[in-house]
Amino acid sequence: MSNYWSDMVKRTEPYVPGEQLNRSDIIKLNTNENPYPPSPRVKEAILREMDGQLQKYPSPSATPLRSVIASHFGVTEQEVFVGNGSDEVLAFSFMAFFHQHRKIRFPEVTYSFYPVYAKLFAIPYETVPLNADFTLDVDAFFHSEGGVILPNPNAPTSLYEDISSIEQILQKNPETVVIVDEAYIDFGGTSAIELTSRYDNLLVVQTTSKSRSLAGMRVGYAIGNPVLIDALMRIKDSFNSYTVDRLAMVAATAAIDDDAYFKRTTEKIVQTRELAISALQQVGFTVLPSKTNFVFATHASVQAETLYKQLKENNILVRHFNAPFIDNYLRISIGTDEQMEMLLTTLRKIL
Amino acid sequence: MSNYWSDMVKRTEPYVPGEQLNRSDIIKLNTNENPYPPSPRVKEAILREMDGQLQKYPSPSATPLRSVIASHFGVTEQEVFVGNGSDEVLAFSFMAFFHQHRKIRFPEVTYSFYPVYAKLFAIPYETVPLNADFTLDVDAFFHSEGGVILPNPNAPTSLYEDISSIEQILQKNPETVVIVDEAYIDFGGTSAIELTSRYDNLLVVQTTSKSRSLAGMRVGYAIGNPVLIDALMRIKDSFNSYTVDRLAMVAATAAIDDDAYFKRTTEKIVQTRELAISALQQVGFTVLPSKTNFVFATHASVQAETLYKQLKENNILVRHFNAPFIDNYLRISIGTDEQMEMLLTTLRKIL
Repeated sequence: MSNYWSDMVKRTEPYVPGEQLNRSDIIKLNTNENPYPPSPRVKEAILREMDGQLQKYPSPSATPLRSVIASHFGVTEQEVFVGNGSDEVLAFSFMAFFHQHRKIRFPEVTYSFYPVYAKLFAIPYETVPLNADFTLDVDAFFHSEGGVILPNPNAPTSLYEDISSIEQILQKNPETVVIVDEAYIDFGGTSAIELTSRYDNLLVVQTTSKSRSLAGMRVGYAIGNPVLIDALMRIKDSFNSYTVDRLAMVAATAAIDDDAYFKRTTEKIVQTRELAISALQQVGFTVLPSKTNFVFATHASVQAETLYKQLKENNILVRHFNAPFIDNYLRISIGTDEQMEMLLTTLRKIL
Repeated sequence: MSNYWSDMVKRTEPYVPGEQLNRSDIIKLNTNENPYPPSPRVKEAILREMDGQLQKYPSPSATPLRSVIASHFGVTEQEVFVGNGSDEVLAFSFMAFFHQHRKIRFPEVTYSFYPVYAKLFAIPYETVPLNADFTLDVDAFFHSEGGVILPNPNAPTSLYEDISSIEQILQKNPETVVIVDEAYIDFGGTSAIELTSRYDNLLVVQTTSKSRSLAGMRVGYAIGNPVLIDALMRIKDSFNSYTVDRLAMVAATAAIDDDAYFKRTTEKIVQTRELAISALQQVGFTVLPSKTNFVFATHASVQAETLYKQLKENNILVRHFNAPFIDNYLRISIGTDEQMEMLLTTLRKIL
């Protein structure tokens, strides 16, 4: 620490993302990336935009992208916010909707960036234990003091909670904002976006990093009542006028526009996931019922950490969390059929 | 306002960027964009990176880019931070180095985003009046309570302050961080980067938006002592793991790498600027001695606001600030020779 550091930086406990190795000999199943490239329209859009535009600032209101998202989800542009990845959208949401003296609530086992944001912005929080089967204890999210944030499906458990539970949480928190982080919603769940027209306190956050194959381009978005979107715009315009660059903007626009490609690739991943789950069960894993592009699995006889290390020695990266309740689980991203076959072959060898 | 808004969003007073019109019939001299496209190497680098990489997250440590910046400026990678435009770097710097109960200081006439950040993060500030000729009152920056931020050259005045003044300000603020915002340094000034090895309290912020023709790609960077860079990394990693996307990363890397192209285009802009200053003087303007890619000019007989409006009617956008001390000035970006000729022709017609 240094005398030059602010109290804010002193209290940070930074998030640690999955290793991002750029080696082509590695099978990377550790950051829930999509194994398929984005829609071919993305490349075309980038090529067009490169032509004489790079020296000019992007649209500060991100209008073309917001408009495509709005029409895709049947909402208005005033109900859409876009940012530099859903992480930035979440950070702005912590700034815009959570308060310094009112405890927010999120699941005890969840996306580990939530406590990081809370510490950064000095927002008090309480965590809600999951049920023994890792499902959400829905009632425990009622009557929060400062608001609620939860992913649906939850990460790293991969479990999807029915939208009726989300609606109950919204009804029992009318005075505070409920943020539903839907990074993985496209792999089998139903989005809460349809509830935004009836619940002014609902903000739904999604990303193009997973189902739209654009992790490298950093585009996330939020959908909610215009009053909430206006707050996010005020934060953004007090922080960085243009957070989505020109190529990210056209890439995300093209990816969201190509619905057929999106459906084809997400369906393929769901298929591969179901095959992978059966195969993992056959070699002794218990696998939670996933609605995401990853599975959360524990083995009957071999420790998760041991498996993680042995897979890594075999050039296969999966994610292991050294955290309470989940330290005997592996989070394994769904890759191509070939990648999952390699994983299974290696696991059979190890076990 | 809404009950759902946090105190933070309630106290914001968002920055308003220059209009970003996408009309090809407009001569856009209002946002200090570079009239020339980026180095041809940028396009090549983007084409290479698009090939199979977009579905994978970027490097969270932004290593390839930081390493090119480090070697370009003769510092180590541990002395370099990169972000989503210099605006994000500045926002993170306000979070990392300024304090909630210690007044920071910046010039009374300066980049209008500084008070916006200060309000967002509840950092108290006092502004230092400029001298009557718009130069910096250097002594007035000594012994600040919470730190100093100033652009060199200053904006929108375009005036460059000798690096010896910056060194005095550093010496007289040993306990606090001094941020020198060098967005326009490449158009005639000397960077304070050479001082970072001797002053632990100096952070120099630069951007690829102006001299590297990459406004559309949003890449800024900071150079300073590793202790300061570490603080910025901690904030970044508590906010958004990957703020520079893959294409922005390779674009900035290629642009900084092509030093010959950079020198050729910045020299051309400086040449055009000097011609434009003479021509503006001939039609009755007083023009401050610019070391930037814009000029700050006032006319002997016609009000700046009137000129701004009449130029706009003629499809030429310049920037006019409705602010104390400078409301009779126009900030005019340096475009191509042809664009400046069109501006002058139109001004002669109006005047």
